[in-house]
Amino acid sequence: MTQQIVTAAMLAIGDELLSGRTKDKNIGHLADMLLLAAIDLKEVRIVGDEENAIVEALNALRAKYDYIFTSGGIGPTHDDITADAVSKAFDRPCEYNADAMTLLGEMYQRREMDFTDARKRMARMPEGAALIPNKVSTAPGFVIGNVHVMAGVPQVFQAMVDAVIPTLRTGTPVLSVAISCPFGEGDIGTPLAAIQKEHPETSIGSYPRYVDQVFSTEIVVRGRSREAVDAAAVLVREMIETIRREKETAKNR
Amino acid sequence: MTQQIVTAAMLAIGDELLSGRTKDKNIGHLADMLLLAAIDLKEVRIVGDEENAIVEALNALRAKYDYIFTSGGIGPTHDDITADAVSKAFDRPCEYNADAMTLLGEMYQRREMDFTDARKRMARMPEGAALIPNKVSTAPGFVIGNVHVMAGVPQVFQAMVDAVIPTLRTGTPVLSVAISCPFGEGDIGTPLAAIQKEHPETSIGSYPRYVDQVFSTEIVVRGRSREAVDAAAVLVREMIETIRREKETAKNR
Repeated sequence: MTQQIVTAAMLAIGDELLSGRTKDKNIGHLADMLLLAAIDLKEVRIVGDEENAIVEALNALRAKYDYIFTSGGIGPTHDDITADAVSKAFDRPCEYNADAMTLLGEMYQRREMDFTDARKRMARMPEGAALIPNKVSTAPGFVIGNVHVMAGVPQVFQAMVDAVIPTLRTGTPVLSVAISCPFGEGDIGTPLAAIQKEHPETSIGSYPRYVDQVFSTEIVVRGRSREAVDAAAVLVREMIETIRREKETAKNR
Repeated sequence: MTQQIVTAAMLAIGDELLSGRTKDKNIGHLADMLLLAAIDLKEVRIVGDEENAIVEALNALRAKYDYIFTSGGIGPTHDDITADAVSKAFDRPCEYNADAMTLLGEMYQRREMDFTDARKRMARMPEGAALIPNKVSTAPGFVIGNVHVMAGVPQVFQAMVDAVIPTLRTGTPVLSVAISCPFGEGDIGTPLAAIQKEHPETSIGSYPRYVDQVFSTEIVVRGRSREAVDAAAVLVREMIETIRREKETAKNR
């Protein structure tokens, strides 16, 4: 079976992420959703609300990966400059999108709220962009080329991700087996490297945990072939048993 | 008073951050600590355990910012490749650091544990690197040039950050005033932009919140001059009062 690899990157935009004021929740959420969709998230960048920084990061990422997802900077205030920056990156005019103007205009009319100039800013997008619907706040995100521009507020970001995922080309799913290991990485390093070498078609990760001043490890075997993942997982479990026996023998000696 | 600006970037390294398995906690922590140290965190990147990706990101960042901080990939297993990648970025040999070998050797001897080949991997660093001490697990991070290489496990990362911060050159502190605003960004967008324009020496951020289906905003005025920040904050508070009065008048009409 031919394996399809689809790659993605995320660009999180906002001074508040870099000042520590806001602890990002969108990266982890997107990572989870892309894993389910069998799209490989390869890189994430976080930049502030600075046009040059956004343009530079976006142009680097969109040339390199199949899909780009941005978060933040599409609200109605002066520090929401993502639409302008994306337009500049694509060298297109940033204009009031007619569909977005209709959508927002009708929503504010229904709610008997003024469709202020500030609110109209939320309809500004690069020429040729298509809307990403948003059930939470109505104000849409947009897609242009391979770039999906979404909100920073987590509830709105998540609603937009839900709308976008079904429109994406997906790859061959990555299968994984997680194995809890009571020993620290220093005990397993050498034998685990040997298993990885024997099974290059899998990617074996080891993730240290530090709880109550004791290190343990979670070992995760990942790959796109069920047989390969299972075969490597068998060896990992055997390795853990071997270390356990060795430690008991040493203790009883 | 001359204002000193010191800039920084972070490179978080690890497949587990991109697969969603681990939700990063180090970025937010570093952001908080750098803010206290008056160092401006300007960019963050997350890449997987791939040498080329690490080298490329590191070389881009270290040329651009005063300080770089990395997290992850310095443990004893085969997927811990940060020391090799950093050595490659600096075009130096990756070797067993004598100080680190002594430190780790003595620690394992005290604990009556084998100083295995895997554990010795934790002493590998680029030639010329200096150690970053770590009270939690002893295994050190390292500094080379303007790059600080630290662990991914949050408790260890935090211990290393504590050791590093006092060694850094710091800038003029950024002062901030946070003002809670009961109105959504659509109400404040236009007048807030006018205040920002009038006070270009401050940076006024507005951060939407969405709770119980109602949008409100936190407005944060930041700057390195106390007078400028206070003056802009007074105008923001007046703006909120004006909007409140306008809304009440409209309701009673």
